[in-house]
Amino acid sequence: MGTRLGALVERLGGELVGDANLEVTGIAPLTDAGVSHISFLSNSKLRAEALQSKAAALIVSAADDAFIAAGYGGARIVVKNPYVYFARAAQYFEALTALRPAPGVHATAVVADSARVAPSAHIGARVVIEDGAVIGEDAVIGAGCFIGREAEIGEGTQFFANVTFQARCRIGKRGIIHSGAVIGTDGFGFANEGGVYIKIPQVGRVVIGDDVDIGANTTIDRGALADTIIEDGVKLDNQIQIGHNCHIGAHTAMAGCVGVAGSAKIGKYCTFGGAAMVLGHLTIVDKVHVGSGSMVSRSILEPGQYTGFYPLAKNADWEKSAVIVRNLSAMRDKIRALEKIIKTKTENEES
Amino acid sequence: MGTRLGALVERLGGELVGDANLEVTGIAPLTDAGVSHISFLSNSKLRAEALQSKAAALIVSAADDAFIAAGYGGARIVVKNPYVYFARAAQYFEALTALRPAPGVHATAVVADSARVAPSAHIGARVVIEDGAVIGEDAVIGAGCFIGREAEIGEGTQFFANVTFQARCRIGKRGIIHSGAVIGTDGFGFANEGGVYIKIPQVGRVVIGDDVDIGANTTIDRGALADTIIEDGVKLDNQIQIGHNCHIGAHTAMAGCVGVAGSAKIGKYCTFGGAAMVLGHLTIVDKVHVGSGSMVSRSILEPGQYTGFYPLAKNADWEKSAVIVRNLSAMRDKIRALEKIIKTKTENEES
Amino acid sequence: MGTRLGALVERLGGELVGDANLEVTGIAPLTDAGVSHISFLSNSKLRAEALQSKAAALIVSAADDAFIAAGYGGARIVVKNPYVYFARAAQYFEALTALRPAPGVHATAVVADSARVAPSAHIGARVVIEDGAVIGEDAVIGAGCFIGREAEIGEGTQFFANVTFQARCRIGKRGIIHSGAVIGTDGFGFANEGGVYIKIPQVGRVVIGDDVDIGANTTIDRGALADTIIEDGVKLDNQIQIGHNCHIGAHTAMAGCVGVAGSAKIGKYCTFGGAAMVLGHLTIVDKVHVGSGSMVSRSILEPGQYTGFYPLAKNADWEKSAVIVRNLSAMRDKIRALEKIIKTKTENEES
Repeated sequence: MGTRLGALVERLGGELVGDANLEVTGIAPLTDAGVSHISFLSNSKLRAEALQSKAAALIVSAADDAFIAAGYGGARIVVKNPYVYFARAAQYFEALTALRPAPGVHATAVVADSARVAPSAHIGARVVIEDGAVIGEDAVIGAGCFIGREAEIGEGTQFFANVTFQARCRIGKRGIIHSGAVIGTDGFGFANEGGVYIKIPQVGRVVIGDDVDIGANTTIDRGALADTIIEDGVKLDNQIQIGHNCHIGAHTAMAGCVGVAGSAKIGKYCTFGGAAMVLGHLTIVDKVHVGSGSMVSRSILEPGQYTGFYPLAKNADWEKSAVIVRNLSAMRDKIRALEKIIKTKTENEES
Repeated sequence: MGTRLGALVERLGGELVGDANLEVTGIAPLTDAGVSHISFLSNSKLRAEALQSKAAALIVSAADDAFIAAGYGGARIVVKNPYVYFARAAQYFEALTALRPAPGVHATAVVADSARVAPSAHIGARVVIEDGAVIGEDAVIGAGCFIGREAEIGEGTQFFANVTFQARCRIGKRGIIHSGAVIGTDGFGFANEGGVYIKIPQVGRVVIGDDVDIGANTTIDRGALADTIIEDGVKLDNQIQIGHNCHIGAHTAMAGCVGVAGSAKIGKYCTFGGAAMVLGHLTIVDKVHVGSGSMVSRSILEPGQYTGFYPLAKNADWEKSAVIVRNLSAMRDKIRALEKIIKTKTENEES
Repeated sequence: MGTRLGALVERLGGELVGDANLEVTGIAPLTDAGVSHISFLSNSKLRAEALQSKAAALIVSAADDAFIAAGYGGARIVVKNPYVYFARAAQYFEALTALRPAPGVHATAVVADSARVAPSAHIGARVVIEDGAVIGEDAVIGAGCFIGREAEIGEGTQFFANVTFQARCRIGKRGIIHSGAVIGTDGFGFANEGGVYIKIPQVGRVVIGDDVDIGANTTIDRGALADTIIEDGVKLDNQIQIGHNCHIGAHTAMAGCVGVAGSAKIGKYCTFGGAAMVLGHLTIVDKVHVGSGSMVSRSILEPGQYTGFYPLAKNADWEKSAVIVRNLSAMRDKIRALEKIIKTKTENEES
């Protein structure tokens, strides 16, 4: 179940210093690694731990290697970015042991006659696939998933168990959707007549690019008239809500519990910390980074790091500060009054 | 797949100015509309776009029509509230093309003998319906839904795929529950004995009125002893959590990610922005509007708009302001000290 | 369907004052209780309601009983902690009427040959259990659940309908997982190479202790290399997100919508109010209580109550205070300037 160091380096690159025939069985953090593991040094502050590691081989940068080489007895794989190399090496080891679901349609799946399922795709137990849906080559649809009418799932995309993917939505290649995610539910659109809500039919789709990951129990609404768009390489964590007609640019990542209201337009290469919220109809340009627990209530037109949450304190201290926050305009008025008095005094003294 | 303008107006009202025999195929925003579309002008600021629209017909208010009539060559439907009319027209077009699921029980559904399913109801693939449940006429239960023992689903109510509706809960007529929603799970009720939690059985129900929409992955807990109540016309977006024994008044709407803790009593015609939170056992009167990301920590006994979130800033600026917020009482003390000094000085000068 | 008071007290303890042969059918709040109900007085402020209660018997503390005995005609059960006793009595009544699902595997369940299901376990309709999974004695797996490869479910643990429990994860004895919860999804782990995310395989597990309750639509990510750990007696409400490699100490409770980012280490006997958020890689010691809507952005190394949310206000007032919060450093500078002027003046006067 392992591999030779040489085989790994042949596949992933990097400069191997040590025995190419050494057998390694997996990857582990510096302090947990055993003698058959590879480990990695992605943070120079951990050099001391690296020297103590029992790992058979270390993934290191050239800068760190100068230091490590002297004191570490194992093999080294010298690479440009040890953390990226670690990710690829971990993928390599996982591929050695992962159980790839067999192609074919489980006997308990309910697949409409007009659906097109590629021969190499795996359709799990209890899956339901409705009319006209298309499942690409090597796609994996886990047990209990629902694929609506005319939905399209691209090549090599994997749905874990119990995903709901509504009618006419589409996702590209090599995507992952985790369990409990719901893609393509109706957006929250109503007209209000005398206090009573009249539903606006949501007839757009959700259109998702390639290499997109969507977390567990995340929800993405279909567009009202136009589509909700998720571009290539977007990574969404669990419990995220994306409203109708949003547009999320390529390679943007959102941590758990983020909410984005309808028609927000978010740029490429952005990041959103956990539970960040974005109001509707805003524009956020490329390379904006919003901190956890922060509410974006206006468009952000300049790249950079933005934050806005109330600092945590002992409850008694918070109560004191919160009372003052509530009355900050009174405090401002007091300062203005003081400034005025001082000014008058000063003028009197000078006159 | 389209309709004549005259047929639309006959059904929905409004004053048609133009050719009643014109064929239209759907509805689209002003700038996207093609020559076979209807569009609508619900915001007078968009008058210029309306004049440029290629739409075959425009839905306009009388006030806007005075302006539009002069410069727009297509037909006009003059109505009181163009946005409400748009919603109804969109429903009209959707009804022309929507695939209404056929009545009957799918062969793979598991329906208890003692359950009563109306003949006109649709029960999808893999649905499970337990003992004594009642499914009303024209109800649609999507694939993979679970309907617990003695639950009741009203006439014309639709569940999308993979809804969980627990024992003894009920929903009225014409409701919609989206995928992944869980209704009637146990409330979070425990007694604590020496640090260890003892579960309090949750034996109430969730009782939902007519015309209620519930979003994807939203959860509503059953009551502990009494019931959790959702009145008529309530609209809940995705990812909302409603605790046990809450009471939500008619025609109240909540945007995504809202949380309401147990036993909160919320009035009618309220609105809650995304990720607003309400603590337990509070009372909120009718017509209260709570902004996104705001925490309601006390009862609100006066209608109006309420807000409370930390304003977003560039991270460096936020760090500065957050440090001061944390120490606002020190700032207040400094101001008091200054006031005292000034007061003493002034008194000295005057004496 | 009821019980004799004597039988209840024999089972649960407490001192009965009154007729042991009295038949009671259930438990109800003071004001709702009818003549066949037991009620409870857990808050001395409700003594007046207790005296008016129609309940056949009251659960009271010794302190309250001195007061109640004089004016209340029904039976009393005098106990140390009436609320805990209420919880146990409610469990007792529920057990009398609860429909215990029958042992056995439903005909529509898909159970791998290599899975081991205890004979006393109940496996509901449409359940999927994959290779090598182990289901303990008296476990109840509700309809539509998915149990991944080599997962382990302990004795007496109950999954409500539509739970997803991924490969190799485990939960101990007497646990409850509510509908829509997803346990063991991949953590949100990526290396970033030139703006593009490279997935880090998540090969750890979720390991859950005994007596753990997990709410509806809650998600817990599996560890990246090591495991995510949930210790005994933890209670998680609905819509919670726990990131990969978190460690949550025994008997900690979290209310709805809480989010905990990856690798956070949380102590025992902590509580988290609704929508509280914890950043990644933090440490929180035992007996920390975090208020609702509060963001924990640093480690908490001292037990106590912590809070941090922006106080709600009428929108117009919030707008005023928010503008000032944004510019607090300007206000601080003004105060400093005033202090300096005053200081100079005072020095001048004294010189």
